[in-house]
Amino acid sequence: MGVSIDLNSDLGEGFGRWSLGDDDALLSVITSANVACGFHAGDPSIMRRVCEQAVEHGVAIGAQVGYPDLAGFGRRFIDIDPGELADAVLYQIGALQAFARAAGGEVSYVKPHGALYNTIVHHEAQAGAVVDGVARFAQRMPVLGLPGSAFLRLAGDAGLRPFAEAFADRAYCSDGSLVPRSEPGAVIHDPDVLVERATQMAVAGTVVAVDGTVVDAAPVSICVHGDTPGAVELATRVRLALAAAGVTVAAFTR
Amino acid sequence: MGVSIDLNSDLGEGFGRWSLGDDDALLSVITSANVACGFHAGDPSIMRRVCEQAVEHGVAIGAQVGYPDLAGFGRRFIDIDPGELADAVLYQIGALQAFARAAGGEVSYVKPHGALYNTIVHHEAQAGAVVDGVARFAQRMPVLGLPGSAFLRLAGDAGLRPFAEAFADRAYCSDGSLVPRSEPGAVIHDPDVLVERATQMAVAGTVVAVDGTVVDAAPVSICVHGDTPGAVELATRVRLALAAAGVTVAAFTR
Amino acid sequence: MGVSIDLNSDLGEGFGRWSLGDDDALLSVITSANVACGFHAGDPSIMRRVCEQAVEHGVAIGAQVGYPDLAGFGRRFIDIDPGELADAVLYQIGALQAFARAAGGEVSYVKPHGALYNTIVHHEAQAGAVVDGVARFAQRMPVLGLPGSAFLRLAGDAGLRPFAEAFADRAYCSDGSLVPRSEPGAVIHDPDVLVERATQMAVAGTVVAVDGTVVDAAPVSICVHGDTPGAVELATRVRLALAAAGVTVAAFTR
Amino acid sequence: MGVSIDLNSDLGEGFGRWSLGDDDALLSVITSANVACGFHAGDPSIMRRVCEQAVEHGVAIGAQVGYPDLAGFGRRFIDIDPGELADAVLYQIGALQAFARAAGGEVSYVKPHGALYNTIVHHEAQAGAVVDGVARFAQRMPVLGLPGSAFLRLAGDAGLRPFAEAFADRAYCSDGSLVPRSEPGAVIHDPDVLVERATQMAVAGTVVAVDGTVVDAAPVSICVHGDTPGAVELATRVRLALAAAGVTVAAFTR
Repeated sequence: MGVSIDLNSDLGEGFGRWSLGDDDALLSVITSANVACGFHAGDPSIMRRVCEQAVEHGVAIGAQVGYPDLAGFGRRFIDIDPGELADAVLYQIGALQAFARAAGGEVSYVKPHGALYNTIVHHEAQAGAVVDGVARFAQRMPVLGLPGSAFLRLAGDAGLRPFAEAFADRAYCSDGSLVPRSEPGAVIHDPDVLVERATQMAVAGTVVAVDGTVVDAAPVSICVHGDTPGAVELATRVRLALAAAGVTVAAFTR
Repeated sequence: MGVSIDLNSDLGEGFGRWSLGDDDALLSVITSANVACGFHAGDPSIMRRVCEQAVEHGVAIGAQVGYPDLAGFGRRFIDIDPGELADAVLYQIGALQAFARAAGGEVSYVKPHGALYNTIVHHEAQAGAVVDGVARFAQRMPVLGLPGSAFLRLAGDAGLRPFAEAFADRAYCSDGSLVPRSEPGAVIHDPDVLVERATQMAVAGTVVAVDGTVVDAAPVSICVHGDTPGAVELATRVRLALAAAGVTVAAFTR
Repeated sequence: MGVSIDLNSDLGEGFGRWSLGDDDALLSVITSANVACGFHAGDPSIMRRVCEQAVEHGVAIGAQVGYPDLAGFGRRFIDIDPGELADAVLYQIGALQAFARAAGGEVSYVKPHGALYNTIVHHEAQAGAVVDGVARFAQRMPVLGLPGSAFLRLAGDAGLRPFAEAFADRAYCSDGSLVPRSEPGAVIHDPDVLVERATQMAVAGTVVAVDGTVVDAAPVSICVHGDTPGAVELATRVRLALAAAGVTVAAFTR
Repeated sequence: MGVSIDLNSDLGEGFGRWSLGDDDALLSVITSANVACGFHAGDPSIMRRVCEQAVEHGVAIGAQVGYPDLAGFGRRFIDIDPGELADAVLYQIGALQAFARAAGGEVSYVKPHGALYNTIVHHEAQAGAVVDGVARFAQRMPVLGLPGSAFLRLAGDAGLRPFAEAFADRAYCSDGSLVPRSEPGAVIHDPDVLVERATQMAVAGTVVAVDGTVVDAAPVSICVHGDTPGAVELATRVRLALAAAGVTVAAFTR
């Protein structure tokens, strides 16, 4: 009856000749793979390989839906019409589902990527559009997002199953929001501190904000970055520390 | 207990701001819609609209899979690796299935487009790749193609359900192959002749080749072009002539 | 020593199989062609044809630079990094210049397209980026934009040559800004009114705002839309009315 | 009055978030940079950076033109219409020229990439199309290609300046053609052998074929690969060996 936490990471973010991150190594560490679906990154053959390997490793497959923007890697806001955004989301999930099923798995959750993720924290129309696209695929689909976001709220309203994630390498404000990247100290680089925070998030469900306040984060999943040097080692350290603390690491969709 | 034939046409071949053909009008005439899936034409919102309208009109939804080549409209051969082609096919069917299901329908067959259609008449590796991509989506999926093609043969070998189509506006050689477009008389422009040929194809299952031979075409479907001036009127005339000849017009996947 | 005005229109806005507007007909009416450069519309072969025909008709060639967004036709704001935007602008002008030169012409001005045009009315960073991209191509390049825009102001500051255009089919506020499209009466559909306004803009340099105020528009160019039904006839009527009023119609870059 | 040779390498082959090879390091070793132009790889900001650094290092800027195929990295044959191919080539050179000029340089040669490079060794129509595209940009433009190729022959016929390159890491047949990659021993991996061959190519203008024949290669340039592990070290060793052999390493367009 112990504590359980999920580790999620972005995978399959190469494109054609270009690769990014070490998908193979990460699949041995994480429990949920946010698989890029070809709009901001990823291509059909990458999606096939990641799905096959995720099924092999028992890692949950999530659709990492993004803006249609390969050139910008989905990292820049696009003022896309909500109806078109909903359709773009549905398209991406459908494409990934074909590979998940062919590999013997299933798309078991959706997590928006990059600028779309950040936009739907507060942009009601686009948040509603993503919810609409997901709901048209499956009415009770789990979605992963930022606690307190418009996205998770609207997802819940629409009958989807909203789940909150946390970032071990990001500083928090006392209201539970992330310190903007533009501010000093926003990103935590010290591996020891990061591992310690991840453990506290899982065990106590809390994180210490920059002003010392203990914030109730209560995530079901901790996001692990995969495209930076040393990412895999760091993720491995987090996983080992969680195990040492008696935390079960398992997909949140189990 | 009468004769039955299907009328299929390419639909949803616009992209963003650009449109092509009169999808709405065609949906009142045809019985199977080959819906573009975003690789050679089509985008998520177009796919949604076509699927919704197809379901409304009781028209069967087919995946019109193509080469990844918007700039070339899928009309130029690409020497794509068979493994990547199979993945590209699976991706497209999966994306379309999401819209078909959201509209209350289903992708009920696959018909390759343009240069891919022509290539897999004889290109064994790419024909096998398309078959593989389709089979990974659904092992008994109907596919529509040219009689005598490598594609239909390999599809049958793999357990898919191969169906032959015919072209009322194309001249035939005595061996059942199409007269190449580069040759004079390859395309039939006279509406009366075209309507007459369509009726003969449906009623007798035959077509008169350029040398006078009566060829056994035996198609389950007749392809109707939608992107030329007067296309809809012509398709309507074909449909009326078939009705007058006592032919039931219905989806071949029924 | 009569009055002179330019007529500009967006051209070359097809892509591959898809066409838009009647470029050939418009080239007989307008004096400046805003040629799409492949980012929001246009492709190399379309650019070649439009440049060749523009040179033949003595029509000035302008670079119609846009956001990198074929799917959105450049009509949705993208929060692109200013440095990347400047580079995207320079890329597009360079590509067009190759076709202009091969046709015996020259890119003689730049006019941003769609959402980029609207954004840089007020968005200082993106306006500065467009100016920077243009200035790196040619330090004294004429640019066409909205009177009062950040774009024209920054262009002037940077040593480019800013020129103001007017819209005969748009209602104006008393401060010279356009009535937003979302408001009733924003677009003028009556051809007679439209032709009358175009003539007044050219002859008197003024336009009557929605509140009756006479606004000093003083454009060097009037924008003529080409992608709506009846666009060519309307443009022709405007040109004839200008001639009848004794206005010389000539490229503003002459 | 010693011997002189050029070292060329593909640069700027990243795209958006994705990078490939170590452009900075290579620019200290090579004398001619084949810069990707955005069709098979490369984007505006990458092109700007590579051009600026090439000018800084005194490295010649060449247009590395490719098929329009980011997904395939320009490595798969596309049966593109020759007229469209010529336009695509002109577009790419024009775009690069804008960055070269803004950096204080100039596109001083053209070298086709990947599948296009290989295709125009024998494909007369596409070879002629590339020649046509280049000639429309500059009638006496130097082009770099495979000795004996249709491309270099047609380039010479058209008044362009054809130059032959050699590959130190590829095995040669006795007729001067490359041993196909599919055959064993086609690629030379031993750094010592590779350096030795490069030196012989530069000093004696010859290469020993697989059957022992001494082939007259007489290249003006040796192609150095940049996207494999150890590429930069290997290129550096080649450059040092050439210097030690008294060979001047300089751009072939000097």
